[in-house]
Amino acid sequence: MRVTILGAGGFLGQKLAKRLAREGLPDGRRITALTLFDLAAPAVPAAGFPVHPVAGDLADLPASAIPEGCDIVFHLAAVVSAAAEADYELGRRVNSRGTDAVIDACRKLARPPRLVFTSSVASFSGGQSARLEDDARQVPANSYGAQKAAAELILADASRRGFLDAVTLRLPTIVVRPGRPNKAASSFVSAIIREPLLGLETTLPVPRDFAVWVASPRRAVDWLLQAAVIDGTPLGLDRSVTPPGLSVTVGEMLAALDAVSPGASALVRAAADAVVAGIVGAWPASFVPTRGRALGFAAHEGLEEVVRAFVADDLEATRRERGHG
Amino acid sequence: MRVTILGAGGFLGQKLAKRLAREGLPDGRRITALTLFDLAAPAVPAAGFPVHPVAGDLADLPASAIPEGCDIVFHLAAVVSAAAEADYELGRRVNSRGTDAVIDACRKLARPPRLVFTSSVASFSGGQSARLEDDARQVPANSYGAQKAAAELILADASRRGFLDAVTLRLPTIVVRPGRPNKAASSFVSAIIREPLLGLETTLPVPRDFAVWVASPRRAVDWLLQAAVIDGTPLGLDRSVTPPGLSVTVGEMLAALDAVSPGASALVRAAADAVVAGIVGAWPASFVPTRGRALGFAAHEGLEEVVRAFVADDLEATRRERGHG
Repeated sequence: MRVTILGAGGFLGQKLAKRLAREGLPDGRRITALTLFDLAAPAVPAAGFPVHPVAGDLADLPASAIPEGCDIVFHLAAVVSAAAEADYELGRRVNSRGTDAVIDACRKLARPPRLVFTSSVASFSGGQSARLEDDARQVPANSYGAQKAAAELILADASRRGFLDAVTLRLPTIVVRPGRPNKAASSFVSAIIREPLLGLETTLPVPRDFAVWVASPRRAVDWLLQAAVIDGTPLGLDRSVTPPGLSVTVGEMLAALDAVSPGASALVRAAADAVVAGIVGAWPASFVPTRGRALGFAAHEGLEEVVRAFVADDLEATRRERGHG
Repeated sequence: MRVTILGAGGFLGQKLAKRLAREGLPDGRRITALTLFDLAAPAVPAAGFPVHPVAGDLADLPASAIPEGCDIVFHLAAVVSAAAEADYELGRRVNSRGTDAVIDACRKLARPPRLVFTSSVASFSGGQSARLEDDARQVPANSYGAQKAAAELILADASRRGFLDAVTLRLPTIVVRPGRPNKAASSFVSAIIREPLLGLETTLPVPRDFAVWVASPRRAVDWLLQAAVIDGTPLGLDRSVTPPGLSVTVGEMLAALDAVSPGASALVRAAADAVVAGIVGAWPASFVPTRGRALGFAAHEGLEEVVRAFVADDLEATRRERGHG
């Protein structure tokens, strides 16, 4: 199997590449080549098969990114929410035109590849009271979400036409993200776990009973791998799946933090922020992922395990990266 | 008020231009200029204000199509269902890239214009048993519908950002279309009225109890004009409206035909066509247009009035055009 990861330099892309290098595909089919594409050539993990880094612009996709014979394409490349909001043209170029370029590359192949696309909870709105079923209408409240929802439609159509065989996963907010706090409105969701574990203070812009729909990096990578190998037939015309994330309150996240690192949540200081609360307040707090469960997407682990996995997988690297090591 | 019609050479565009020339806007605001844009320069109706025909490619929109000071843009330009299915690139270029070009032109104006966009019942599926509420998910079964649904999302986002002020109308199948039968799967819906009124035989590819969601050209133009002047505030993030069309069976249409022209339906011959039935069988047979009614979009007239309006408005011109006059 020839596999490509678009957006392989990103956080999930790197984890996915390492996992493929270490464990292969979940159905045991052998990987013969892995292409890693991003704006800058991605890091190449040690693997028992050739790994080709390719650098370029998604909207002007080089032919080597999705070479002839490619069986599986993970399309994770995106301009994310804060950046797409700040720069409309850039978001459109990567999130919309880029997806068209991926379709065109797949059409050129002799056999339509499985395409695993990451859409987002940000393509929905509804707020704290929402508990969205699989047939909920996507009414995005940000350009990133609108571009993702539009790309879902265009990819479903490309699947119907036989250009490719898409499975779209609408990923929840990923927690715990490594690295630094950033300007994304969702930054606090990871920061309230990560920063205290680094011994650092951080602020909480929403009340403790604020609910978020989350998934761990480990489970997100599991789902991506499952999406690469499932039988797509039961999906029919609608190629999008909400995988079984967790709806948790900030209070529950802090309790899990304290269970792993007693007293750590004392470093989280309430600091109401109307702007952040306004943005994240539009996100749906919960989904009913009936379809994702029926398709066999792995159930989510508990919050303490999420915190422990961050400690095991990413805490040391984050500490080194941030100069606290 | 400066007004532009994109797609002004089409069937609805021409009717809309004539209506604006004859009656102006429904809220009485005075039109000072009308620009008519299409691939070929559209016919110019007699009007009490300047009318500017402009020819060009929507995806490479000339600046004169949406000039500075433009208050209202009707965006009716599209590659329709059969053509978008036959030529993927053409559909994408006009229906997706073209809509982006319209957004970019509107962004350049000092004031964001009202943009009236026509989406379609073809952006939904569900079939004969469907009775879709306003919050129904769009799961298109054709490229035209997918491109329209995606454009709805992108235009709603452009509205949220203040680039323009969109109101999208998801038009039903328009009946009675003048002209000739064509290769569109929906061709029969108009042909079973139009052809007998011309004294010509035609075929019916579906059973008589087959239900369709339809609207007359007169009512569609009414809705476009209403969409141009309504207060958009109640629409919130979701700028799309299903106007109150009619869910009718083929049998009811033929009864209305006979009421206007006794015995005419004898010219309609049953000729089952599995291909056509497969395509039109995916269209939802009915909607519950609660939102459209609440916003004041005009209720639909009865079927006999639809047939009589075709006789009054379009029968003679169709006869002449087709050489039976």
